[in-house]
Amino acid sequence: MTVHSLPHTGTSATAVESQFMDTAEGRRRPTIRDVAAVAGVSRGTVSRVINGGHWVSPDARIAVEEAIRSTGYTANHAARSLATGRANSIAFLLTEPQHLLFADPTFALLLRGATEALSRRSMTVVLIVADSEQERRNVEHYARAGHVDGVLLISSHESDTLLDTLAGAGIPTVCTGIPLGEHIPVPTVSVDEVGSARTMTRYLLDRGHRRIGIITGPNDTPGGRFRLQGFREEMGDLFDPDLVEQDRYEKDAGAAAMTRLLARASDLDAVFAASDVMAVGAIAAAKRAGIRVPEDLAIAGFDNSGLAETSEPPLTTMGQPWDRISSAMVDILLDVIAGHPRESLVLPTALVIRDSA
Amino acid sequence: MTVHSLPHTGTSATAVESQFMDTAEGRRRPTIRDVAAVAGVSRGTVSRVINGGHWVSPDARIAVEEAIRSTGYTANHAARSLATGRANSIAFLLTEPQHLLFADPTFALLLRGATEALSRRSMTVVLIVADSEQERRNVEHYARAGHVDGVLLISSHESDTLLDTLAGAGIPTVCTGIPLGEHIPVPTVSVDEVGSARTMTRYLLDRGHRRIGIITGPNDTPGGRFRLQGFREEMGDLFDPDLVEQDRYEKDAGAAAMTRLLARASDLDAVFAASDVMAVGAIAAAKRAGIRVPEDLAIAGFDNSGLAETSEPPLTTMGQPWDRISSAMVDILLDVIAGHPRESLVLPTALVIRDSA
Repeated sequence: MTVHSLPHTGTSATAVESQFMDTAEGRRRPTIRDVAAVAGVSRGTVSRVINGGHWVSPDARIAVEEAIRSTGYTANHAARSLATGRANSIAFLLTEPQHLLFADPTFALLLRGATEALSRRSMTVVLIVADSEQERRNVEHYARAGHVDGVLLISSHESDTLLDTLAGAGIPTVCTGIPLGEHIPVPTVSVDEVGSARTMTRYLLDRGHRRIGIITGPNDTPGGRFRLQGFREEMGDLFDPDLVEQDRYEKDAGAAAMTRLLARASDLDAVFAASDVMAVGAIAAAKRAGIRVPEDLAIAGFDNSGLAETSEPPLTTMGQPWDRISSAMVDILLDVIAGHPRESLVLPTALVIRDSA
Repeated sequence: MTVHSLPHTGTSATAVESQFMDTAEGRRRPTIRDVAAVAGVSRGTVSRVINGGHWVSPDARIAVEEAIRSTGYTANHAARSLATGRANSIAFLLTEPQHLLFADPTFALLLRGATEALSRRSMTVVLIVADSEQERRNVEHYARAGHVDGVLLISSHESDTLLDTLAGAGIPTVCTGIPLGEHIPVPTVSVDEVGSARTMTRYLLDRGHRRIGIITGPNDTPGGRFRLQGFREEMGDLFDPDLVEQDRYEKDAGAAAMTRLLARASDLDAVFAASDVMAVGAIAAAKRAGIRVPEDLAIAGFDNSGLAETSEPPLTTMGQPWDRISSAMVDILLDVIAGHPRESLVLPTALVIRDSA
């Protein structure tokens, strides 16, 4: 049997000591009062942090989060679940081949953010990879059966019918990226793709580059389409359709695209790869061709995932706000589950300058 | 609306054409008869493949699996679930920090195998990372509430109480590795750790190495403890406790352990790292110290994960049968869920010789 050792927090904690006793397990659970006392804030502030952190100062939020950790406080969602019939669980649903989950570090960043945001609320994140038709049907049944309260849909291929299936079944769903094509509208959390691509393109132009190629993602994804659009807009008269390559968001695909670009244009002076994974592949292909990065060819990425820092050379890239994306997705999804409609959100990116461009 | 296009399979398929019509969706679902006709086997054989593949020849199994794919057949587990109250879902539960899921490719291999084995049975794999106390409590509630039918527990730290919690709550559970310490007994799928470590050690001795170090995992994991035991047994009088380092199954930890070994023993001629991830870290540390692998120092791994082939130099390692481990875990778990007790299983490993040792 484990015994919670509560920090000594003076009278506030002592006052409630005998009040809340989990007789089933014979141990006293820390309460919201304990957290408030340790954090030195009101119970209302603790409640606001637990329920999404709106209208809380950063300092208060940190103090409350530390107090939650030190007291071992958990919102009693399990009891609530018995009353509401909810599963207290959210699906992190990736509709891509499984190997991408492991090949692209951006998914790990989103998963960690979602897990942390939901763990605080005593909710479980279940990661489901549904690539094949069979897997999609299975996950649809699973969600319809109420085993998750809602879905964070991590994918955005235009042909993806799962969004409509889930939304049509009334399952609360929030998407990363703005889905292309005609879909049942659901809230999305995305970044300004066109503006971000323009910022990177402007940076490359300002560095004196003129023959700039782009390696972008599939045209049926918002990243693939809109990053190309931003690049094209910013390049203006300098845009050359011969310097455009599209491929999958994978390292090998980035390398192959780079090799095709080099075969067509020996005068390239920079390449904008629309994901860090592709940029790493492009750098490898350039090196194999005896081209130095950045001395002979500048190569920039997009994402600022873990790869950007460890790449050789470290990547100049557009930083996506991964923590904010995942926590916003969770906040919005919980509101939708609670019956409060929410608008979509577009978050800003930031140019991160390192060595590759 | 999608329409299944069934392959033309002669009279067998035609005969059932009008028989099975899913009127709700207006499309005919392929049946077990269609699969049998396409595969050229009996319906009994198809059924045995679907239910675990016992008593089926490899050729017949492949033919049935191909026929399942080409017809788009899915077992109607969703309907069965309404009758049985099952979730048709299995948790792939990792009780490690999330970053390990992405840092160690063995987890991806196990996850893929489990997903494939369960997708064929119209079941969903939900991956849950439960590292903190909070996350463990959440996943316990989730499993108790029946949102999964059973748990593949991917972890084996001796102090892990989750196994007892799950097993004690009557949740069907199968473990990778043999848990150390006193636990409620559940079926396990493991490899012969001691024998595998002896095989690798014998290989290094046969290559003429005498001053052999070992970098092994934490002592509270079966891999960490039993690989060291096998190494020690096989080394006999040559065993030197000064040449033992234990650390986490991570690249940085492998590098740090290598650096500590090198500081203590300048006469090392080989190192057995008890995971490929650690071996890759050890090679990096050796290179940084100006030591050539394998010319100056042989370094062997354990796992034969994807890393072994792409490492520079490619790793000599003990190959774990990942596909068999994951499919055996799934088979055993489904039997336990169905109320049929199963014994634990120990699978063989194989020495894979590449360049690093």
